[in-house]
Amino acid sequence: IDTAGMDDEGDLGKLRVERSKKMLMRTDFALYVMDAEDISSEDEKSAELLFKRFHIPFMKIINKMDLLDQEKTENLKKRYPDAVFVSEKDFSSILRLKDEIVKRISKNMEEPPLVADLLPYGGTVVMVVPIDSEAPKGRIILPQVQCIRDCLDHGVKSYVVRDTELEKALSDLDYKVDLVITDSQAFKSVNEMVPPSIRLTSFSMIFARNKGDLAVFNEGLKAIENLDENSKILIAESCTHNFSCEDIGRVKIPRLLNERLGKNLNYEFKMGHDFPENHEEYDLIIHCGACMTNRKTMQSRMRICSECGIPMTNYGVLLAYLNGISERAMAIFREEADLGEETA
Amino acid sequence: IDTAGMDDEGDLGKLRVERSKKMLMRTDFALYVMDAEDISSEDEKSAELLFKRFHIPFMKIINKMDLLDQEKTENLKKRYPDAVFVSEKDFSSILRLKDEIVKRISKNMEEPPLVADLLPYGGTVVMVVPIDSEAPKGRIILPQVQCIRDCLDHGVKSYVVRDTELEKALSDLDYKVDLVITDSQAFKSVNEMVPPSIRLTSFSMIFARNKGDLAVFNEGLKAIENLDENSKILIAESCTHNFSCEDIGRVKIPRLLNERLGKNLNYEFKMGHDFPENHEEYDLIIHCGACMTNRKTMQSRMRICSECGIPMTNYGVLLAYLNGISERAMAIFREEADLGEETA
Repeated sequence: IDTAGMDDEGDLGKLRVERSKKMLMRTDFALYVMDAEDISSEDEKSAELLFKRFHIPFMKIINKMDLLDQEKTENLKKRYPDAVFVSEKDFSSILRLKDEIVKRISKNMEEPPLVADLLPYGGTVVMVVPIDSEAPKGRIILPQVQCIRDCLDHGVKSYVVRDTELEKALSDLDYKVDLVITDSQAFKSVNEMVPPSIRLTSFSMIFARNKGDLAVFNEGLKAIENLDENSKILIAESCTHNFSCEDIGRVKIPRLLNERLGKNLNYEFKMGHDFPENHEEYDLIIHCGACMTNRKTMQSRMRICSECGIPMTNYGVLLAYLNGISERAMAIFREEADLGEETA
Repeated sequence: IDTAGMDDEGDLGKLRVERSKKMLMRTDFALYVMDAEDISSEDEKSAELLFKRFHIPFMKIINKMDLLDQEKTENLKKRYPDAVFVSEKDFSSILRLKDEIVKRISKNMEEPPLVADLLPYGGTVVMVVPIDSEAPKGRIILPQVQCIRDCLDHGVKSYVVRDTELEKALSDLDYKVDLVITDSQAFKSVNEMVPPSIRLTSFSMIFARNKGDLAVFNEGLKAIENLDENSKILIAESCTHNFSCEDIGRVKIPRLLNERLGKNLNYEFKMGHDFPENHEEYDLIIHCGACMTNRKTMQSRMRICSECGIPMTNYGVLLAYLNGISERAMAIFREEADLGEETA
């Protein structure tokens, strides 16, 4: 994404810089490009600060090297030992830049685990995928595909079934199942069908761990019992087009939360990249599963909330809690790390 | 897809009309738009003939109705009782058109079955998905996703495993398995692992049935034993970007076929929408699984081949044959219909 830069002036310029900063929240890797003849140390420093604030690995690129004489070139190379120097007049410098970008990005990409890392090699997972009218025709949704693939990569076998065939599926396998993963929508009924000896969690919990942080979301649940009619709750969704999420966020969660507390709470909704700056006014932020956005976006949003001390949780973690099955749904993750006190 | 129309003149015009005709081979539904003031019965008839030749359901739309007086309008409506009449100046006529298009398209969409229609409700399928370096990271390929979804829709359970975990998977289920579906690449080893009492086929065979016609592809195999150094074989792929297919088409199939016949045959390759007109010169056409194209494209290509009497088969059917497991791989489909004599 080519941003307008960090140093624009005037009213429109300010808006542009604001947009560039918002973009940083979603950035996995940054290229900071400077003109060889026009380097501002001040701008450079403020950009570096921003990159560090949002934990963005970055590289410096110095352009228009053809404008400098040899002495100036040497000086610049000494001053920026890690930068890459390019000129549009030197095609090989562009190729070197490409190689360098690929090299540095791959060095910085750690793929966070999904679920199979918690399971034994050769293990068995039952995945419960209820098919409702909202599922896209002829497909299964991305988080489910990703979990199947993650299991394949780790030599874990996935038995993919609807909720209506789940009991038969468990008996097919003689109940020798390492984990059942369900769509959050069917959490309650699946919880009743799966014997207590078998672990159970949801696709949303897996992605809460993969893109966010289960300990943070679990901690966020503690804010719930203190909510009242004066509290302000933000429900944030990262995409604008997933009907199923919309229904969970706009209908199910508010209804279940109101029922739980016996109160009519105040909800505000934000969609897409529109994550508000005025977080201080919220008492709880409930985020969607973020299945259509990258990990960086979630990490940035979590950082902003933690800086302002605003409790944050997500759909999957909250739905498990409201269905009274937090503890069970969290168990598979609990072993690997300390996820804070149990809340359910 | 908005084509250039069927009535263009001059050299460039001819090219345009040629392109429109090629497009028809891939068309699921056609809208034939005429000017209210400029209707050519001749063009209309020739378009209708083309639609019928390619088995394309179509509807007629008459545009610019605002240019006609009431009498002419009445006459036109009598002459075209099934047409839809629109004017860009009458917004409600555009809305009516949209509704009518949706209505007629849904009436004409029969979804051909994939595989679950051949299995009992509550049945169990084992899907073998070997993960090699060509599989896109974090995903599974579309034909596999579609088969899982098809099974879910029919209440059939899918156990998704790699070839390396297949034997364990079969034993998990106590060998009570209605069908094993494998990637064609692993056909040979999977064939050895799956006991003869369990049905086995491949994803490619399923899509050969779904997009093409197993009886035709099976019949096409008969041409193989008559091929020699003077024969010309066309290998046709419908997409240009699938490395795994490329490898099957350009390397594996020619090698296996040459080995089988002990001869060095002549192969020609065509990719994407580039399906040649001069079919007569080929002795056999071997088509890819067509996983990235629609059923209509395959049906049109098959029709063209059958009109010229050119034998046609596809990757999945041919690979099963060359691995000596045609009969087994075809068994699950054989029950539903007469698929011609056994060739293996």
